Amino acid sequence: SYSQTQTKSKAGYQAGVKDYKLTYYTPDYTPKDTDILAAFRVSPQPGVPPEEAGAAVAAESSTGTWTTVWTDLLTDLDRYKGRCYHIEPVPGEDNQYFCFVAYPLDLFEEGSVTNMLTSIVGNVFGFKALRGLRLEDMRIPIAYLKTFQGPPHGITVERDKLNKYGRPLLGCTIKPKLGLSAKNYGRAVYECLRGGLDFTKDDENINSQPFMRWRDRFLFVQEAIEKSQAETNEIKGHYLNVTAPTCEEMMKRAEFAKEIGTPIIMHDFFTAGFTANTTLARWCRDNGLLLHIHRAMHAVVDRQRNHGIHFRVLAKCLRMSGGDHLHSGTVVGKLEGEKGITMGFVDLMREDHIEEDRSRGIFFTQDWASMPGVMPVASGGIHVWHMPALVEIFGDDSCLQFGGGTLGHPWGNAPGATANRVALEACIQARNEGRNLFREGGDVIREACKWSPELAVACELWKEIKFEFEAMDTL
Amino acid sequence: SYSQTQTKSKAGYQAGVKDYKLTYYTPDYTPKDTDILAAFRVSPQPGVPPEEAGAAVAAESSTGTWTTVWTDLLTDLDRYKGRCYHIEPVPGEDNQYFCFVAYPLDLFEEGSVTNMLTSIVGNVFGFKALRGLRLEDMRIPIAYLKTFQGPPHGITVERDKLNKYGRPLLGCTIKPKLGLSAKNYGRAVYECLRGGLDFTKDDENINSQPFMRWRDRFLFVQEAIEKSQAETNEIKGHYLNVTAPTCEEMMKRAEFAKEIGTPIIMHDFFTAGFTANTTLARWCRDNGLLLHIHRAMHAVVDRQRNHGIHFRVLAKCLRMSGGDHLHSGTVVGKLEGEKGITMGFVDLMREDHIEEDRSRGIFFTQDWASMPGVMPVASGGIHVWHMPALVEIFGDDSCLQFGGGTLGHPWGNAPGATANRVALEACIQARNEGRNLFREGGDVIREACKWSPELAVACELWKEIKFEFEAMDTL
Ligand SMILES: O=C(COP(=O)(O)O)[C@@H](O)[C@H](O)COP(=O)(O)O
Ligand SMILES: O=C(COP(=O)(O)O)[C@@H](O)[C@H](O)COP(=O)(O)O
Repeated sequence: SYSQTQTKSKAGYQAGVKDYKLTYYTPDYTPKDTDILAAFRVSPQPGVPPEEAGAAVAAESSTGTWTTVWTDLLTDLDRYKGRCYHIEPVPGEDNQYFCFVAYPLDLFEEGSVTNMLTSIVGNVFGFKALRGLRLEDMRIPIAYLKTFQGPPHGITVERDKLNKYGRPLLGCTIKPKLGLSAKNYGRAVYECLRGGLDFTKDDENINSQPFMRWRDRFLFVQEAIEKSQAETNEIKGHYLNVTAPTCEEMMKRAEFAKEIGTPIIMHDFFTAGFTANTTLARWCRDNGLLLHIHRAMHAVVDRQRNHGIHFRVLAKCLRMSGGDHLHSGTVVGKLEGEKGITMGFVDLMREDHIEEDRSRGIFFTQDWASMPGVMPVASGGIHVWHMPALVEIFGDDSCLQFGGGTLGHPWGNAPGATANRVALEACIQARNEGRNLFREGGDVIREACKWSPELAVACELWKEIKFEFEAMDTL
Repeated sequence: SYSQTQTKSKAGYQAGVKDYKLTYYTPDYTPKDTDILAAFRVSPQPGVPPEEAGAAVAAESSTGTWTTVWTDLLTDLDRYKGRCYHIEPVPGEDNQYFCFVAYPLDLFEEGSVTNMLTSIVGNVFGFKALRGLRLEDMRIPIAYLKTFQGPPHGITVERDKLNKYGRPLLGCTIKPKLGLSAKNYGRAVYECLRGGLDFTKDDENINSQPFMRWRDRFLFVQEAIEKSQAETNEIKGHYLNVTAPTCEEMMKRAEFAKEIGTPIIMHDFFTAGFTANTTLARWCRDNGLLLHIHRAMHAVVDRQRNHGIHFRVLAKCLRMSGGDHLHSGTVVGKLEGEKGITMGFVDLMREDHIEEDRSRGIFFTQDWASMPGVMPVASGGIHVWHMPALVEIFGDDSCLQFGGGTLGHPWGNAPGATANRVALEACIQARNEGRNLFREGGDVIREACKWSPELAVACELWKEIKFEFEAMDTL
């Protein structure tokens, strides 16, 4: 009932400190369709009751502070305050709670991921009264989503531009990460593309260093793209990283990429930040370039279970800010990513309607109101033996990227690329014929080795290489 | 000896996977003056030796990946690779190590914090072979520092612009955080400034919402500044938050702030990102505006001891990217911040030369080569009783900000501001007369209450309010 949850300030100004829960804990509240919802994992300090901890989070991420202020009387706090409306203990954990908070739409600037995050993860993570805090998920209401442009083009438009359908796309991060000259870099790109890949990629930390300035790289890479396209009769691309120290410099690089006619550029959205990323994404839609997004720095915030922001939240934020591709882990490779969790956020990236499903870490039903989908990019320590699992896990609307798994081939890049392309097509064919890749994937690869010496050599080289460690982030 | 640490690839291309430590663990290496140095707290998975874990971090944050690639032969890996040059067990911890990594200067784009972070905290935090990873500190060589502009103006220039010396500055975050109309907001600002504050502040999440659009706020606030200046004969300011969804929008707001003649603007550097922040900081120097920096989202990454990035690293990054003020905690207020650690990074923000001092968490001697200093801002749950401790801890070159601690005064903002100003000046006078504020601070405040009824009322209201919880991040 609304009257019960009215703010005490209605009674006049009484200075002093009172419990957050008197104002911000409202278990009777039913969230509105237009509210932004957040699910936090809260670990209170000993002696701090869960209602007070949840209410403190709701307060300090919306309208409140630690003491009553007279200026509260100048506004309608009941209209603007965040509300902790539901709390449940985390199964199997001691003194840890999922706290659900509803925020009125009016608290947020339209089209601004920067503003939304500043409110919701701004100050509360430092609260002395909490030992740890994790933002597990958010429900973005359609009314707020419609104020964002989202991905410049999205999966469907990308496929039409590339004229490639019915299989995952294949990419490769050029290695060594740093130190190649622009001309050698262009050669490495050319070898990969002619060998059978759809895309190559600047590594996240390739920006503009003394050994290779950005303009030289762009030119040699574009030459490689054009040459390999002419030879293979397929559309090819390379993610030219336009990440830069300032916005002006970022745009200068993007403009030049457009000028030379390259199809796709790239951005490190998290180290560059949401403000720059949103500018770039809007520009990409206006100018017809695809936008590949690397997530450098994400694991600083999303790896640990009890503190930080889950990647499914960062992925939603990126879909709102804009990007056509987003790195999203491999499950099987060198970097962490549990399977169920990964499949959950991959759905959040590319589907239009996703049902709440706690078994995949999805706390809220999310409707995207036809905002274009983001293509998940699986990359990081993967090689040919992983192909069947990758196809099963990520399906067709994905981009599989083998960096070391291409350039580490004993015969070089082009055979490395061919090995991956053969393995991918063998898996797709087998799947389309109704075979189960989880069970029979190894056989499918071994059969293909019989007629592809490139694949046979790659399989021999990496046959023992697995990355099996206990995951830090589990459900 | 250099020859021992040469990369094996010199011997020709041998495909396959080998231990990272063969290439990237080099205990004989002596870091160069131009190297960027990083100290990581590494928690390897059981069974992963510390040398391999440290080497993996060095590899994947510089040139390496999980397998050998033939393109390594196209460059001089010994020139470009990162090196784990020193490892020591963390005292009192099981299977946790401080690993020191040296990165050659050539790996980084000049003037780009975005690029530096992308390399150093890009992918390694997600490594399956590690349970946790924390970047504790970095040594930025002068050769790299000189490629940054740093703070637009710095502490000395700010004081000259304000014509205020010999005491901390006093500020206040306007509350409630959200929901005031622009005109009421301007009134609240005016009351604070005429009552005795130097500055008021937009809260971090005040950007441009339906209840108060940015342009209206800027105008009413500027009116309040001018009126209070005329009445008090002191220079006053309000941090107008120009944080925005895109770079263009951010610059539009900054240009308007300049047009109306306001002295200082504000940015949420971490949610907006380093690329936008660097653009804004450069513009501020060119246009004579001071830049106040809020650190919303920092505690997501810096709160936990075993994973993330320490705030002293974020603070260094901000000094490089640019800002004249930076929020840096209070030690005594509602948000976490252990005293020794805070005093350590406050020195890193404003001094020119800081010696290595593990007892304050400083892993490297840092020389700033005359880059201007950043003024620390103490804010978050502080009130008049905290004043003596704040003056002792932060000293003169700081800004003390009482949000609730001003607006929560029983008589309103102007008396709340007066209470803070009286308390501050009493503490400064006592300190200048040689009294010890840690021991006698309570007496100093009680004496001042005798002649300041505003202070007496504030002291009575908040006499019981303390924030005492076990810190999560300790040395
Ligand atoms: O080094 C990489 C890939 O190279 P390789 O294929 O040689 O391992 C990284 O860019 C990872 O893809 C990043 O991780 P996420 O994709 O998980 O963000
Ligand atoms: O709400 C605030 C201050 O208000 P109040 O004075 O009412 O508590 C915050 O902006 C904190 O200052 C942020 O924390 P840090 O300064 O630690 O970043």
